[in-house]
Amino acid sequence: MTQRKLGRGVAVVGAGMSQFGTFPEKATRDLFVEAFREMRASVDKGLDPRDIEALFIGNYSSDLFEHQGHTAPIMADWVGLTPRPAVRIEDACASSGVALRQGIMAVASGLHDVVLVGGIEKMSNLPTAEVTDTLATAGDVLYEIPAGFTFPGFYGAIASAYMARYGATPEALMRVGIKNHENGALNSKAQFNISIGGIMQARQASAAKKGRPVPQWSDEMAFLQDDVYNPMIAWPLRLFDCSPITDGAAALLLVSEELAGSFSDTPIAIIGAGQASDRALPNRPDLTSLGAARHASQQAYQMAGVTPQDVKIAEVHDCFTVAEIVATEDLGFFEPGQGFVAAEEGLTARNGLRPVNTSGGLKAKGHPVGASGAAQVIEVWKQMRGEAGPRQVDRDVDIALTHNVGGTGQTCVVHIFERR
Amino acid sequence: MTQRKLGRGVAVVGAGMSQFGTFPEKATRDLFVEAFREMRASVDKGLDPRDIEALFIGNYSSDLFEHQGHTAPIMADWVGLTPRPAVRIEDACASSGVALRQGIMAVASGLHDVVLVGGIEKMSNLPTAEVTDTLATAGDVLYEIPAGFTFPGFYGAIASAYMARYGATPEALMRVGIKNHENGALNSKAQFNISIGGIMQARQASAAKKGRPVPQWSDEMAFLQDDVYNPMIAWPLRLFDCSPITDGAAALLLVSEELAGSFSDTPIAIIGAGQASDRALPNRPDLTSLGAARHASQQAYQMAGVTPQDVKIAEVHDCFTVAEIVATEDLGFFEPGQGFVAAEEGLTARNGLRPVNTSGGLKAKGHPVGASGAAQVIEVWKQMRGEAGPRQVDRDVDIALTHNVGGTGQTCVVHIFERR
Repeated sequence: MTQRKLGRGVAVVGAGMSQFGTFPEKATRDLFVEAFREMRASVDKGLDPRDIEALFIGNYSSDLFEHQGHTAPIMADWVGLTPRPAVRIEDACASSGVALRQGIMAVASGLHDVVLVGGIEKMSNLPTAEVTDTLATAGDVLYEIPAGFTFPGFYGAIASAYMARYGATPEALMRVGIKNHENGALNSKAQFNISIGGIMQARQASAAKKGRPVPQWSDEMAFLQDDVYNPMIAWPLRLFDCSPITDGAAALLLVSEELAGSFSDTPIAIIGAGQASDRALPNRPDLTSLGAARHASQQAYQMAGVTPQDVKIAEVHDCFTVAEIVATEDLGFFEPGQGFVAAEEGLTARNGLRPVNTSGGLKAKGHPVGASGAAQVIEVWKQMRGEAGPRQVDRDVDIALTHNVGGTGQTCVVHIFERR
Repeated sequence: MTQRKLGRGVAVVGAGMSQFGTFPEKATRDLFVEAFREMRASVDKGLDPRDIEALFIGNYSSDLFEHQGHTAPIMADWVGLTPRPAVRIEDACASSGVALRQGIMAVASGLHDVVLVGGIEKMSNLPTAEVTDTLATAGDVLYEIPAGFTFPGFYGAIASAYMARYGATPEALMRVGIKNHENGALNSKAQFNISIGGIMQARQASAAKKGRPVPQWSDEMAFLQDDVYNPMIAWPLRLFDCSPITDGAAALLLVSEELAGSFSDTPIAIIGAGQASDRALPNRPDLTSLGAARHASQQAYQMAGVTPQDVKIAEVHDCFTVAEIVATEDLGFFEPGQGFVAAEEGLTARNGLRPVNTSGGLKAKGHPVGASGAAQVIEVWKQMRGEAGPRQVDRDVDIALTHNVGGTGQTCVVHIFERR
C-alpha cells in the first residue's frame, strides 16, 4: 500500500469515560451520557454541544447483550444531539478503535469539522456463560465455533503456540497481569482498581470473615499459581489471564487541526492511522503473531513518519495476558520471541523502558468490548497532557500509540498520536 | 448547518447485487460473493480486486439473524480481500446507505482511492414472528417495544396519522403496492418478479389445483381489498402494504473522481450526501413526516446544488407503502398532503412525472434490510447508464436520488448522483 496522507489533519480535543465495572441499574445510554459529560468537561476552552456535527459510535453487540439495535441515534438523542447523523461501527472488540478511524475520515474528508467518537458496551446483563457465547459470535460461527472454540480457547491456542515456539512459561503471562493490576490500582475509573497484592489481602479477609482457614501465599506469583484462587480457564490461561466482563462507555471529541486551538490548549494530533483484516484463526500459517496488527501498525508508522522506538507509551489490546506480549512484538517494540522476556524484565512497567497499558489495560481497567478502543485513547490523552495523576509516567510523552484488536485479529486498528 | 463540500469528488464505477429472495441453502457470505461477482463484471474497464483498499459493509443484525458478529472481515475473506480493512456499519435498515456515506468519506479524506461498499442481510433463517421481533429491536426496547409496537404497528400509526390529516384512503396506499409490483415484474433480481395481476392469477391457479372455489376479483384493487387474500396486518396496513422478509446482498465500487475514467466509461458521480438522526416515534410532534428525511435531503440538495425538480428518478425507502408516500413529500417532490394524490394519479409510475422505485422498491424487489440502501444505488446506476432493460425509463436520467431510512426515521440518509 502506498503511503497515505489525510486531506487535512485531525486532532483530539476532548476525552471522557464512564466508570468501568458492572452496573445492573444502568443501561448503555446512561453510561454514554456519563462519558459524554466527562468528555465535555475535558475540553479546555469549553464545548457547545451544538457544534458537534456527527457521531460515530463503536459497539460490538447491543443486539445480543440488550436486544437493542440501532443504538447510534439513541445515543444521539440521550445527549441531545438529534438531528445530527449518528452511525454505529462494529468490528467486534475493535469497534470503537474503528469508529475513531471513521471519525478521522469524516473530518479529513471535509464533510465535518467537529465529530464525536464514542464506544459503548453493556455486557453484565447476561449470565457469564451467555456472555462467553455472545463474544464467540465474533469467531466464525460456521467453521470455528462448531469445533468448540470460545475466546479463552482461541487465546489459549495462541498462548500455547507462543510458549512452544519461544520457550515462554505461564509465569511470563502472569507478569503482565501483575503489572496491569498495579496500573489499574492507580486508576479510579478501573473495574479492578486494585493490585494483585490487594486482591490477595481481600481473599484472606474474606476467608477469615467466613471462619475458614486463611490462605497464605509467599508472593503474588504464588497466588497466581494457586489452582483454587486462580483457576485454569483454557490452558495455559487462568482466570487472572483474562479480561473481565465490563459495562462502560467512552467519548472523544475530534476536530480539524486548524480548529484545534479554538477548543484546546493542548490538542493531541492523530498523525498515523492503520487498519487491517485477517482470515479466521484456523486459516493462518502462524498463531504467534497477528498479521492484521503487523499490517495496521506498518500503515500507521508509515503515515506518521515515526518508528516503534519513537513511541513513548502504548495502550495495547490485552484481552488476555498473552495478547499483550504478542502485541508488543507485532508493534515492533520487541523482536519476535522477546516480548515475554520484556514482560519478565519489567520493560513494559509504568516507568520501564516502554510503558504499556498504564491505564491498567483491558485486564484491570475492564473491557466493555465496544468501548475499549476509544477508552485506550483517553489514557493516551491524559498521559500526553500530564493529567494521568498518580499513574503519570516519569517522562514526556510526545508520541503515543493505541492498538485495538477485534476477534482473534480478524480486525486490528492502530493509531499514533502527537502532542501539539 | 453550513454548506459542505467534499475534499475531492467520488464516483460509483461498479454495482452488483445477488438475487433477492429467500435462500435456505445460502449463508450471508454466499450472497455477498454473488453480489461481488456481479459488481466486478459491471466495471467497464475491468477491476483487479487487489486495487480495492477497504470495505464498508452495511448490515443490520447478523448477530440476531445468524448469531454471527464481526461479519465485515468474513466478507473480506470470502472475496479474497484480506488484509484490507473491513468495517461493518449499522443504522438499522439504513445500514448500507450509511455504509455508502462512510465509503464516500474514506475516499474524500484521501486515505483511500478505491473502496468497496457492501450491504448484506440473511433474514429468512428465523420464523416470521422472530424476524418481526428482531426488526423491532430497531425501535427503543426500553420505551417503545414494551408498549407492544413492532414495525408494522409503527408504520400503521404513521399511516393512520397521515390519513387523518390529509383525507387519504387505504386505496392510495394500495396504488403504491400495485405500481411497485409492476416495476418488480420487470426486474429479474426481484424477490417478487411479478405484478399484483400475476399474483391474482397465481392465487386462482392454486385454488383450482386444490379443488377449491376459484376466487374472482374485478381488478387489482378488489384483490387488495380482499380480507382473505390481503389480510390486515396493522390497521390500515395489509399484507401487500408491507415489504417482505428477504435474503440478499449488494456491492458498489467507489473511486476518487480523478480515477473514475480508468474504471468506467460512464461513471456516476456522487454530488450530494446527507444524513440525519431523530428521536423515537413517541417523542416527535408529527407522525406524517420524517424529520430526519427532511434534514438529510436538505443537506444533500444543498451540497449538490440541485433542487427536487432536477431529480429525474428516485429510489425511496418503501418498507411500507405509506413510507413511499411520506418520502415523496419529505424529499420535496410533492407538497405535504399531496404525495397520496400523486400516487393515485400515477405521477410516480415508471414513466410518470416523477418515477419512484423503478426497481420495484423494497416492496417488490425485496428488503434484506442491511442491503437495501446499497441496492437502491444499483437501480440508479443502471437507469443512469441506460442499462435497466425492460424497466428503463423513457427519459434521460442525468440526476437521481436515493433515500434510505433506519427504524421509523431515527436515521435517514440521502444521496444524489449525476452521470458524468
